[in-house]
Amino acid sequence: MTTPMTFLGLGAMGSALAAAALAAGRPSVVWNRTPDRARALGEHGATVARTVNEAITGGGPIIVCLLDHQSVHAVIDPVAASLSGRVLINLTTTTPNQARELAVWAVEHGITYLDGAIMAVPRMIGQPGAAILYSGSQAAFEENRELLGLWGHSDYFGTDPGMASLNDMAMLVGMYTMFAGFLQGAAMVGAEGVSATEFARRQTPFLAAMTGQLPALAATVDAEDYAGAGQQSLEFTEAALAALVTASVETGVNADVLRPVHDIVRRQITAGYGRQGTARIFEELRTSRNGRR
Amino acid sequence: MTTPMTFLGLGAMGSALAAAALAAGRPSVVWNRTPDRARALGEHGATVARTVNEAITGGGPIIVCLLDHQSVHAVIDPVAASLSGRVLINLTTTTPNQARELAVWAVEHGITYLDGAIMAVPRMIGQPGAAILYSGSQAAFEENRELLGLWGHSDYFGTDPGMASLNDMAMLVGMYTMFAGFLQGAAMVGAEGVSATEFARRQTPFLAAMTGQLPALAATVDAEDYAGAGQQSLEFTEAALAALVTASVETGVNADVLRPVHDIVRRQITAGYGRQGTARIFEELRTSRNGRR
Ligand SMILES: NC(=O)c1ccc[n+]([C@@H]2O[C@H](COP(=O)([O-])OP(=O)(O)OC[C@H]3O[C@@H](n4cnc5c(N)ncnc54)[C@H](OP(=O)(O)O)[C@@H]3O)[C@@H](O)[C@H]2O)c1
Ligand SMILES: NC(=O)c1ccc[n+]([C@@H]2O[C@H](COP(=O)([O-])OP(=O)(O)OC[C@H]3O[C@@H](n4cnc5c(N)ncnc54)[C@H](OP(=O)(O)O)[C@@H]3O)[C@@H](O)[C@H]2O)c1
Repeated sequence: MTTPMTFLGLGAMGSALAAAALAAGRPSVVWNRTPDRARALGEHGATVARTVNEAITGGGPIIVCLLDHQSVHAVIDPVAASLSGRVLINLTTTTPNQARELAVWAVEHGITYLDGAIMAVPRMIGQPGAAILYSGSQAAFEENRELLGLWGHSDYFGTDPGMASLNDMAMLVGMYTMFAGFLQGAAMVGAEGVSATEFARRQTPFLAAMTGQLPALAATVDAEDYAGAGQQSLEFTEAALAALVTASVETGVNADVLRPVHDIVRRQITAGYGRQGTARIFEELRTSRNGRR
Repeated sequence: MTTPMTFLGLGAMGSALAAAALAAGRPSVVWNRTPDRARALGEHGATVARTVNEAITGGGPIIVCLLDHQSVHAVIDPVAASLSGRVLINLTTTTPNQARELAVWAVEHGITYLDGAIMAVPRMIGQPGAAILYSGSQAAFEENRELLGLWGHSDYFGTDPGMASLNDMAMLVGMYTMFAGFLQGAAMVGAEGVSATEFARRQTPFLAAMTGQLPALAATVDAEDYAGAGQQSLEFTEAALAALVTASVETGVNADVLRPVHDIVRRQITAGYGRQGTARIFEELRTSRNGRR
């Protein structure tokens, strides 16, 4: 029989992870701060623990899915001494540096640490389309592949425990900026009586097609080939963005989402790169005005 | 025989439009301020005019594709008196209000005005995937459908001459914000040695899949149903965006592109909507802080 594993945190996501393990016949001990949330899993065969100490006696991997970095420490710090030699798989959303901090903490307590970043909503867990990025202990990743595979497609990003979170967050930036840009566009046509649904009917296939430009932008960035042929120049893009901001303001729509893109392009032109390709925006972004490089 | 049509402006885009008409056997008179750029079209059967006055004698529709609104006036104002009764199809990029201004000017001179917004690059003209949005004179749109069809898919947005431009620009907002967000993400992973190409390999299918969320966002916006079930709350999104900004700053990457999205979400929470859905961003955008409404 498989060693029982532990689930700490049974919110929407933790419950979905535990449910998938139980459905696959994996013996599981579950715990949640508010005991009520453990009941449904108990009815599906989980052993419900009343304390964290009780929950971690099984010997299998310990799956943590809590609100944030702080709540992870709140739950595991008191039992650190009992976790030596164990595998901790933390699927709580944390920043890269928070994941690294937890990994250091784990090493100090003789714990093997694997960090995960979930690219799915709870109802997608175990369904096609769910992906979880991992980084940290490679041994923990390899030994638990079957378990991880129950939740979704697993991707390993190396031993730096911050890399799963970093890759996850980097991908979400594009998603949130796209959503915000879509909503700004919807507000612009909405000011003239076009429904957002009507707008989405055109915008959705257009943006999906435009994602096809990303590999070319990436190749330009990697080659630092901003002067190469066939690129839309920063000057061309500046004129377009100026028109978009004007059109937005003229319809009474807040252009805050787009304006920084326009500002970045203008700074690149001021720096003398107007004839070069628009992918040069990258150069402005990677040099933070308040950070290291 | 068809009445010869006129092309004013033979830059990259104007030349592509004229070339498509010539390839379809349409007699065309072409003019460009810098005569050199007319030569290739002359070799493909176009009649090259030396002056705008000479170019407009044919009687067919007059296709204008110049740099911007100002250059359109510079070219057509001097010949306005000769254009009475003619059809002017303006494919120059202008803001919605500039298109409306040109339409008023056209009416004053007895000219029928159709405005077009090109969603393609020159090499796509006449190929699948090219789309041109039109608004203004419906008669001009209907009478010239065959010609317009030579360039790409044609869509008519009604008699308000500003609507083609407005819909075009609204769609481009999402494209530019997505591109900028992608480049920010690439800079974030790039700070840790991941190439933009490697990043694009994951980001491209992810963002393409995420465009699938836009119709649901649109439906929420149209119904103003921000309290309905199954939505990601503004509080959830705020926590995510705070983490993304932190992760960006920690890698030394400029977070200016994402920050206004975070600010908008925070303002909505301050206004008391934290438990409501993230599509409420729309409500903040459509109320410009410096515009009417
Ligand atoms: N939901 C998603 O779509 C999604 C997607 C990707 C990643 N994630 C990540 O998954 C994690 C969990 O999300 P969720 O959707 O499951 O959130 P949730 O439903 O709000 O659950 C939060 C969990 O954290 C517990 N918790 C919070 N503070 C605690 C503390 N100080 N001590 C002990 N327990 C504490 C809660 O316990 P109580 O029940 O006692 O409050 C609950 O079990 C988050 O990091 C989230 O970012 C979620
Ligand atoms: N290229 C694209 O990907 C694309 C996509 C969508 C829409 N558009 C729009 O199409 C229009 C033309 O773009 P393009 O790519 O063809 O630009 P372009 O290659 O730079 O050509 C600009 C044209 O405008 C003429 N022009 C500029 N100022 C003038 C003036 N004061 N008087 C007379 N002629 C003047 C130029 O004449 P000279 O040759 O004498 O300079 C040239 O014919 C623009 O509004 C652009 O936004 C282009």
